[in-house]
Amino acid sequence: MVIFGAGGDLTRRKLIPAVYYLCRDRLVPEQFAVLGVDRRELDDEAFRERLDGGSREFIGAELDTANWQRMLQCVHFLPGDFTDPDMYQRLAGRLAELTEADGMAPNFLFYLATPPRFFAGISTQLDRAGLLEESGGNWRRVIIEKPFGNDLQSARDMNRQLHEAMDEHQIYRIDHYLGKETVQNILAFRFANSTIEPIWNRQYIDHVQITVSESIGVEGRGSYYDQSGALRDMIPNHLLAVLSIVAMEPSNSFNADAIRDEQTKVLRAIQPLSHDEVLTSSVRGQYGPGILADGTRVPGYREESEVAADSKTETYAALKLMIDSWRWAGVPFYLRTGKSLPGRFTEVVIQYKHGPNIMFRDSLLKREDVPPNTLVLRLQPNEGIGMNFNAKVPGHSTHLGTVQMNFRYDDYFDNAPTTGYETLLHDCMTGDATLFKRADNIEAGWELVDPVLEVWSALPVRDFPNYAAGTWGPTAGEQLLKRDGREWRACEACHTNVT
Amino acid sequence: MVIFGAGGDLTRRKLIPAVYYLCRDRLVPEQFAVLGVDRRELDDEAFRERLDGGSREFIGAELDTANWQRMLQCVHFLPGDFTDPDMYQRLAGRLAELTEADGMAPNFLFYLATPPRFFAGISTQLDRAGLLEESGGNWRRVIIEKPFGNDLQSARDMNRQLHEAMDEHQIYRIDHYLGKETVQNILAFRFANSTIEPIWNRQYIDHVQITVSESIGVEGRGSYYDQSGALRDMIPNHLLAVLSIVAMEPSNSFNADAIRDEQTKVLRAIQPLSHDEVLTSSVRGQYGPGILADGTRVPGYREESEVAADSKTETYAALKLMIDSWRWAGVPFYLRTGKSLPGRFTEVVIQYKHGPNIMFRDSLLKREDVPPNTLVLRLQPNEGIGMNFNAKVPGHSTHLGTVQMNFRYDDYFDNAPTTGYETLLHDCMTGDATLFKRADNIEAGWELVDPVLEVWSALPVRDFPNYAAGTWGPTAGEQLLKRDGREWRACEACHTNVT
Repeated sequence: MVIFGAGGDLTRRKLIPAVYYLCRDRLVPEQFAVLGVDRRELDDEAFRERLDGGSREFIGAELDTANWQRMLQCVHFLPGDFTDPDMYQRLAGRLAELTEADGMAPNFLFYLATPPRFFAGISTQLDRAGLLEESGGNWRRVIIEKPFGNDLQSARDMNRQLHEAMDEHQIYRIDHYLGKETVQNILAFRFANSTIEPIWNRQYIDHVQITVSESIGVEGRGSYYDQSGALRDMIPNHLLAVLSIVAMEPSNSFNADAIRDEQTKVLRAIQPLSHDEVLTSSVRGQYGPGILADGTRVPGYREESEVAADSKTETYAALKLMIDSWRWAGVPFYLRTGKSLPGRFTEVVIQYKHGPNIMFRDSLLKREDVPPNTLVLRLQPNEGIGMNFNAKVPGHSTHLGTVQMNFRYDDYFDNAPTTGYETLLHDCMTGDATLFKRADNIEAGWELVDPVLEVWSALPVRDFPNYAAGTWGPTAGEQLLKRDGREWRACEACHTNVT
Repeated sequence: MVIFGAGGDLTRRKLIPAVYYLCRDRLVPEQFAVLGVDRRELDDEAFRERLDGGSREFIGAELDTANWQRMLQCVHFLPGDFTDPDMYQRLAGRLAELTEADGMAPNFLFYLATPPRFFAGISTQLDRAGLLEESGGNWRRVIIEKPFGNDLQSARDMNRQLHEAMDEHQIYRIDHYLGKETVQNILAFRFANSTIEPIWNRQYIDHVQITVSESIGVEGRGSYYDQSGALRDMIPNHLLAVLSIVAMEPSNSFNADAIRDEQTKVLRAIQPLSHDEVLTSSVRGQYGPGILADGTRVPGYREESEVAADSKTETYAALKLMIDSWRWAGVPFYLRTGKSLPGRFTEVVIQYKHGPNIMFRDSLLKREDVPPNTLVLRLQPNEGIGMNFNAKVPGHSTHLGTVQMNFRYDDYFDNAPTTGYETLLHDCMTGDATLFKRADNIEAGWELVDPVLEVWSALPVRDFPNYAAGTWGPTAGEQLLKRDGREWRACEACHTNVT
């Protein structure tokens, strides 16, 4: 395993602790080595000392010294500049040395813990140095983290450059917003239960809501965020990933490519928004100062550090998407995400259609008094499933009340807490790409978002900030559903404050 | 309100307390009187004293003396023999007196708290005395309690005699095994939830189980029970009532006749059992001595008081029924009921079909490892609904675990505890017949049970007792489902003891 950018925070905080757990749990081969690459002038020993001081705290009380020391002995260092072709010759030499000395199978995992602008360059150089050539069953894999471009063109450019250096199957693009468990939980819920799938379509479902709500502001990420905004940051990857898992057709297996085929297929079936449609089907917002439910006064986005005082960047985005498929034609998918909202949660609401009201006609119940069923997939926190349905309120008259059946994964299963990265590394080593994104999937996401980006950048914003921190976003976000006679499901655990 | 058999236990324990609550809650008209009829030689005062001593304890701590005294003043008594025609002349006179004196609307409710053999005679005499003739919007209603016959012939005879004296709409046959709330809860659950009805049919449901399990033995009812048995006592009324509510087509309203039309319709759609089919589709059992989970040693049925030492009466009965309708063709309904079983509960299990297993093929899960969904309607105790479904067990491999979503009415609603009888009386006075049975419904039930009675009485039992008290009944009861590759759902709250 080669880490580019080994001097950075990600290595210290996440990758080395993950490697420690994998070694401890014997989930890496006997013969395993980590080689850190960075501009810093360090030797193996100095690098190990650095990690010994810097990473321990991220493992916590349960650190076992013997395992930790054994792991540290597997760690090596190579100083060098990512842009220097010579460095890759030295890297090749060092890798040959390490693998030959220990009789290791020369499988190489390159982790690019660098800013995205280096991804293409490093890949090209690795390719030129012959380090990406797979042969005789030995693999070469490259892990990169998002962002994968900041619009369709840049995403395509990045993918083209990566593909010049290696095959798609060698590229592991991390999108760990949805844990693998969560993805598989949704799939298992949909397809291992004979009562769910038969009514998972436009015949029975009125619409779907997907909410990724953050209660915090940008908190130190101002310089990145002000370039990106809520739409770029969240929709093409996170929200569309959730949408595609919820809306996809059954795959033939839990195999990563089978699932990703279906995900891409459903993304491609989403109606592209024309520029006119963007005006009616998208909403942007930016938070101003606000007072939270607990009385805390929080600054507006434009007051955050590293954010322009007249920033036009959106911190809230909502979209209405339609899917052109037999399953979903006519069923709107409403997506929203934002910062400084009243709660931190991710959930999917499946709103079923009204049934016929015939039995309740005589009892003076109006159609509105028989609310349709809703199924809520809570992805975080408290992952679980809730079904809202109607029950008769006891008494002489026929009144209905909405009640809930609930299920929480925590109540049934012990979820081993992990940093997440050991799963990612282990999956990459074993070739399980479920958690990783494919080029076609990423480009399909950007294709959907691109027209929105174009219209938004062409039409200057006049009303920012248009929602107070701690509220549910701009009025237009509510209007997006109200116009269709619908509304966002109220978050039960959140307190909306009045500012 | 006229009570025949006013000196009996039912009057003292149930009817008078119910009248008290109705008066207290102003659910009877201002001008209301109760007239007790019985062979005892009492006058109004003596009868009131009797009730004052005998009924108070069945109301409990909340008795309000002012209301109690006011109610007692409405109570009158007429001594007489039910078989004596003269008595009915005196009754007519007394009723005229009472109603004229107080300016009451002459609506008469006759409650026959007598053994069933008097039902026909009393009705005939009431008719001859002109007391059942409705005119000018004044009603005459007669309440009787089960048993309504002990086979098809006797049920038909009773209905014919009743119909000679009055119209069907005047007859209120109490079957309060299922509370009105429970019936309406099932109907509301089925028809107020748009996700339930679409999969409530043979396309999605594999089979249905209905269990009425009693943990006690006959306890003092030996002389009645030994003539009746589990089949007669429970199936034509209680279990078929549950079946018909679960299996009926949607009615056009909550109106009693609309619902009873649908109930009768589905009962008539049940395939009649030929004598051959009785042999394979019915099971009878009788409990012997046993040891309960708590170590208590309990006697066998034949050792109970007033039970013959070689009794052939069954204390356990199970049936497999098929319904010839578009909704249910091919879906077996398994019914079982018994005494001295390990738990006291009534529940309906809707067992859905298996889904296709395709996604889980690669994960080495066999079809049996993906159990089908089940929906459990718990009718008592702890009335509520449970949905068992499959969820992924966290971890690298794809294992599924069965989890449950639950709902209890108690958790959501305050159920006002009642004796049940005030609802019955109030419903009868207001003409709501939901809780009461119609002649066609009763005869349809006996029609189904009659062939079983015939075969059972023709074929002598050799193996009684064939289950130990505190176990789940005879092996043949398990076999009834096993032959079809199915099994009774295990009762979660019960402990099966080994004897």
